Amino acid sequence: MDKLEAKLLKEIADLDSLPVGAYNIRKNGGAGGRNNTAHIVIDTKTDKSGIDIHIAPGTKHESVHIPVIITETGLTELVYNDFYIGEDCDVDIVAGCGIHNGGCDTSQHDGVHTFHVGKNAKVRYYEKHYGEGEGTGKRIFNPQTIAYLEEGASIHMETTQIRGVDSTKRYTKIVVGPGGEGTITEKLLTDGAQVAESEMDIVLAGDGASGRVISRSVAQDESQQIFYPRMIGEAKCFGHVQCDSIIMGNAKIKSIPAITAECPDAQLIHEAAIGRIAGDQLMKLMTLGLTEEEAEERILNGFLQ
Amino acid sequence: MDKLEAKLLKEIADLDSLPVGAYNIRKNGGAGGRNNTAHIVIDTKTDKSGIDIHIAPGTKHESVHIPVIITETGLTELVYNDFYIGEDCDVDIVAGCGIHNGGCDTSQHDGVHTFHVGKNAKVRYYEKHYGEGEGTGKRIFNPQTIAYLEEGASIHMETTQIRGVDSTKRYTKIVVGPGGEGTITEKLLTDGAQVAESEMDIVLAGDGASGRVISRSVAQDESQQIFYPRMIGEAKCFGHVQCDSIIMGNAKIKSIPAITAECPDAQLIHEAAIGRIAGDQLMKLMTLGLTEEEAEERILNGFLQ
Repeated sequence: MDKLEAKLLKEIADLDSLPVGAYNIRKNGGAGGRNNTAHIVIDTKTDKSGIDIHIAPGTKHESVHIPVIITETGLTELVYNDFYIGEDCDVDIVAGCGIHNGGCDTSQHDGVHTFHVGKNAKVRYYEKHYGEGEGTGKRIFNPQTIAYLEEGASIHMETTQIRGVDSTKRYTKIVVGPGGEGTITEKLLTDGAQVAESEMDIVLAGDGASGRVISRSVAQDESQQIFYPRMIGEAKCFGHVQCDSIIMGNAKIKSIPAITAECPDAQLIHEAAIGRIAGDQLMKLMTLGLTEEEAEERILNGFLQ
Repeated sequence: MDKLEAKLLKEIADLDSLPVGAYNIRKNGGAGGRNNTAHIVIDTKTDKSGIDIHIAPGTKHESVHIPVIITETGLTELVYNDFYIGEDCDVDIVAGCGIHNGGCDTSQHDGVHTFHVGKNAKVRYYEKHYGEGEGTGKRIFNPQTIAYLEEGASIHMETTQIRGVDSTKRYTKIVVGPGGEGTITEKLLTDGAQVAESEMDIVLAGDGASGRVISRSVAQDESQQIFYPRMIGEAKCFGHVQCDSIIMGNAKIKSIPAITAECPDAQLIHEAAIGRIAGDQLMKLMTLGLTEEEAEERILNGFLQ
């Protein structure tokens, strides 16, 4: 692994070396290393691009890393990764993709991740998208994440995209079974002429299901963001959607949530706010000796923490 | 005016007799009485059904009542009413429609109201829809309200529909100029198999414009409600949308708001909540001696106050 690849790996998965436990590294559309454990088996799909990840029932305190790195310009790929997580598991899954585009052609990674989460299993899923490179070629990510949660199962999904990605179109769907829980924390910062679209369907399909979406975004310069967080209550359930956006420069932000109660025992709440950084917050930090830029940076960091 | 007509008039405009000031009463698609004042002139349209209402600049503490009553079964009408409100006015406008349908055919009133509100004028606009009658014929209202506010102008719109209306499809649009203010307070209760849809566009088009939507609804039995409140900030403005719905029986409620910041100085907030009446609220009132039904009624009345 060269320096560039190591840097991307660090950015998207916080890895200084090969991860402990199961992993599959995808490098410029090919294999970059794989490790199975006694409980976690990764197989290459035979019918299309991608992998199947089987996690044995009862697997606890284990992790799977499946980072993707692209350093070739002009590489476009569509990958399907399917996760089968057995009952009573408690695992961390770290995905993410880093693109270094030094050329003038578009580099694009479209990943379709499907999770089948068994009864009472707990999954924490981290996904980070990172782009860099001196080239004029675009860096594009279009991730799709679909999760089906059986009774008592939970998924906590954290997605992060801070700068460097020219265009993204995200789709996330979680179907939560009885007593299950689906949480999405989304962090997004766009600048320049970047565009980002994020669409979500959280279906609270069983009694006692709960769902939560926390979306925090910053749009700078001429960038544009659109959000469609949708929560549907089909049973006795609780759902909460919270979207906060900071708008700067000449950016544009649109938020079109939907909450739908299909059952009278569904309790659904939505909150959204779009606005500038409050002037008095800036002022306060500036009286402490920070420049306006430093104060802004400090506030954005806190907001996207 | 017979007893039935008097009752409808009381329900929709809180009138015990003919109103003071300017008025135009529409009765079963025809004229039911009109009065002009020195400052307010009502003319019948010559090209289509409806009236033009001209309010002279500087008119203050005056009101216009334009109630519509329908007691014939099978009557369907589409009416255009245009309001021209001069600069610096401060007026109340009371519209509303009551249908008594004693037959088996549909009675339907579709009203398109357009307001041109002059510089610094203040308008309070009340609209109440009421339906009753022992017949099996449907009672349907499809109101459209469009308001254009010049600099510093304001409109405060209050719409109420509590039971009795089988189907309604509302559309409201307010374009708010610099320093202007548009407020919509919507109260809606549906029961039985009633359906209600309310769509709104609030365009904050000038610096210092502000907009506020407060929507409170109750859906009982098998009734269905859909809300599309949309707020667009095109300038340095402040907008707030708040939708609260109580769901009962087997009702379904869907809320699909949209907030769009087209300008970085736009500050927009949206909140929505759908849920049952809280059990502890009911319990508290029941320990004070109320039956469950009485407690529920008390809470709903407070909510829709």
